[in-house]
Amino acid sequence: MASSSSTSIVITPEQLLEDWQGHRRLTRRMIEAFPDESLFTYSIGGMRPFSSLAMEVIKMAVPILRGEITGEWTSYDPPNPTTKAELLGLWDSATADIDRLWPDIPPHRFQEVDTAFGQWKMAGYAMFLYAIDNEIHHRGQGYVYLRSLGIEPPPFYER
Amino acid sequence: MASSSSTSIVITPEQLLEDWQGHRRLTRRMIEAFPDESLFTYSIGGMRPFSSLAMEVIKMAVPILRGEITGEWTSYDPPNPTTKAELLGLWDSATADIDRLWPDIPPHRFQEVDTAFGQWKMAGYAMFLYAIDNEIHHRGQGYVYLRSLGIEPPPFYER
Repeated sequence: MASSSSTSIVITPEQLLEDWQGHRRLTRRMIEAFPDESLFTYSIGGMRPFSSLAMEVIKMAVPILRGEITGEWTSYDPPNPTTKAELLGLWDSATADIDRLWPDIPPHRFQEVDTAFGQWKMAGYAMFLYAIDNEIHHRGQGYVYLRSLGIEPPPFYER
Repeated sequence: MASSSSTSIVITPEQLLEDWQGHRRLTRRMIEAFPDESLFTYSIGGMRPFSSLAMEVIKMAVPILRGEITGEWTSYDPPNPTTKAELLGLWDSATADIDRLWPDIPPHRFQEVDTAFGQWKMAGYAMFLYAIDNEIHHRGQGYVYLRSLGIEPPPFYER
């Protein structure tokens, strides 16, 4: 019924932020778990190394958030880091930006359909879920990289 | 939804269902993409073959949904399939159950904290997100398996 969907809160904005940041904390532990060189070089099946996957996540996160806040979609393309410390620095910077900017999302934007970066037409909630899901997806790839390197990854359920 | 600016609905139950089923459609395409034998035997780094990961997803999905509907947490442990057709049959059965049962979730259960299966204490929304995220996580592992087998996986963004 339409009435039940308009009266029952599934998840609040604050809970969605906490879900996202929980995933980001786990992905950060994944970055830390990689040996420095493997982080930038190790690959299976021609896929990108985990540093590149993490950079994709970094390049999406804050631009998507800013786009949902402002309706303006501006890409963010920092120079690729060459050390784990640099990568973690970019990661932590995005984490702080997300926490700082999140309260600025106009509430109606979660349900409003927009075309992100001129190509992805979807509601705000779907855009955020896509960003989170893409991170989980690539992190799952990283779990295989670590296991095949003989390294125990951090537990998936710990956020 | 005219007054959404004052209520700030992030996502409706119907939208969460569609998100879940979209992921399930993609995971089904992943199962189909595996060669029959590799589905049950191929592994990297001592991890489980993709059939076992898919079975974990199947065993979680409907029991979690029933638990959120009823407050009763009953496990579901079907015999392990030995063919792709059997696995897809179990998958499709769960998909149909989810569509059929979803409208029975009492709206307040998304925010109500319960202890699923006597061990996972979280709100209903978090339990559903965990189930979806766990599926994405294991499916991401499957992408590496397929790539290392020289098989192009289905696109992540297609649901």
